Amino acid sequence: MARKKVAFQGARGAFSEEASRILLGDDLAYFPCERFEQVFRALADGKVRYAVVPIENTLAGSVHENYDHLLKFQLPIIAETRVRIVHNLITRPETKFSQIRSVISHPVALRQCLRFFEKHPQVRSEVFYDTAGSVEQVMRQRDPAVAAIASALAAQYYGAKTLRRSIEDDRRNYTRFFLLARKAPKLRAKNGQTLKTSIVFSTRNQPGTLFRCMSALALRDINLIKIESRPLRGRPWEYLFYVDLIGSPLEERYRNAMSHLAEMTEFLTVLGCYPQAA
Amino acid sequence: MARKKVAFQGARGAFSEEASRILLGDDLAYFPCERFEQVFRALADGKVRYAVVPIENTLAGSVHENYDHLLKFQLPIIAETRVRIVHNLITRPETKFSQIRSVISHPVALRQCLRFFEKHPQVRSEVFYDTAGSVEQVMRQRDPAVAAIASALAAQYYGAKTLRRSIEDDRRNYTRFFLLARKAPKLRAKNGQTLKTSIVFSTRNQPGTLFRCMSALALRDINLIKIESRPLRGRPWEYLFYVDLIGSPLEERYRNAMSHLAEMTEFLTVLGCYPQAA
Repeated sequence: MARKKVAFQGARGAFSEEASRILLGDDLAYFPCERFEQVFRALADGKVRYAVVPIENTLAGSVHENYDHLLKFQLPIIAETRVRIVHNLITRPETKFSQIRSVISHPVALRQCLRFFEKHPQVRSEVFYDTAGSVEQVMRQRDPAVAAIASALAAQYYGAKTLRRSIEDDRRNYTRFFLLARKAPKLRAKNGQTLKTSIVFSTRNQPGTLFRCMSALALRDINLIKIESRPLRGRPWEYLFYVDLIGSPLEERYRNAMSHLAEMTEFLTVLGCYPQAA
Repeated sequence: MARKKVAFQGARGAFSEEASRILLGDDLAYFPCERFEQVFRALADGKVRYAVVPIENTLAGSVHENYDHLLKFQLPIIAETRVRIVHNLITRPETKFSQIRSVISHPVALRQCLRFFEKHPQVRSEVFYDTAGSVEQVMRQRDPAVAAIASALAAQYYGAKTLRRSIEDDRRNYTRFFLLARKAPKLRAKNGQTLKTSIVFSTRNQPGTLFRCMSALALRDINLIKIESRPLRGRPWEYLFYVDLIGSPLEERYRNAMSHLAEMTEFLTVLGCYPQAA
């Protein structure tokens, strides 16, 4: 049986691959892409069965680019997961800590591990393209003085060693990922599952419209999980709103809220309805 | 007379320096910092008179880390500005385009210029710590085969040449910056100026509270410019809300709205009141 094929942005062993395994299991075929747009394109063109993309990070905020692609490609969200971004010090299998003189990784990862570098001034940090790729480089380069910072999965994938776990300064670093498919499966609520829906809408250029839009949800006791406004470029005072709510088309109040919302918005798109991550 | 001293994150010539000049004029003394926290600390400790920090980017979203520092340090926002992020191809003064074999820059900048690299396959991209720093490196290295991607200001500062302007893929790339001081100046509305206020609040763990909070503003015809929720770590169903609104303590309806809001929130902080950027 052919393995499920999934597209993601980054090198093998990237955090998006970790998210893919949580969402789909370990028996996957991977389609790594350089750009997010290529990830969406691969799914739209039928090159893969699934795509996994980051949508927000607790430290860095929403990935607006992927919201744009979600709107453009109209590929439904069918699941979500949250991955804690753990940065590990990764070396060749034979390396001892005292041998390390430099550590390579993506600058964002390096900057999230500043305390490690302050504590070990003999170790220099050096930028590299991405976290997982830095592990590949360490293994290829065969120099025990060079280590990498990346996920444990990257260490495993490239046959490297995780020498120090979780060297990041702030452990409250989580990324939320969406699983996308070409077509949404038939919706059903399994026991104990809470269904969540992600929508995007824009309002007409009038004061108080957002408040009225929210009344369509609040007056039906529909709970919001996320709300975020984003200015529409070139159209002052007009906004896109990203809203995540608890509810699904299986409920009458949800269906009523959506048709009420449609009356009051310029456009309204449902990005997907999926089980809430634990 | 001593020049106004301003702290920002990044090397000289960074986009934050560009924002500083727009906000404060050209006659400044600079205090570049490696980390955002050091920027806030420098202002809190009186090492500088001002600090300039990015708060959101149209492609990458809100800089949550700086919202955290705003809450922690309680240093008031006294102005805002928006800077278009223009990536330029920058070389040594004598370099011709045909000589360039590699381009160094921060990976985020490199990834925002992919079309340039697709069009010029003879030019390799290489990661560097930051955009402005890559220009310094090009000037120090004296190799005409190496160029940088950075702001025009960086080119000017390091005496380099802007060979190609605006090579980024997406021109809708703007960053909004805040100007912070130790103490807010006495508030007054100059002719034609619109005053804007940034607040943060958290609500009690009850359905519909956000809607009620927004009513305190909407029913007084106070316009929202931005709303964003952020989950409170370790406290499921509790959120921080970042809200920007049009209004100031000079207006009675604003003062009423704030005391109304204070009744309904767990905490409410005004981050600053400042003239809206053009």
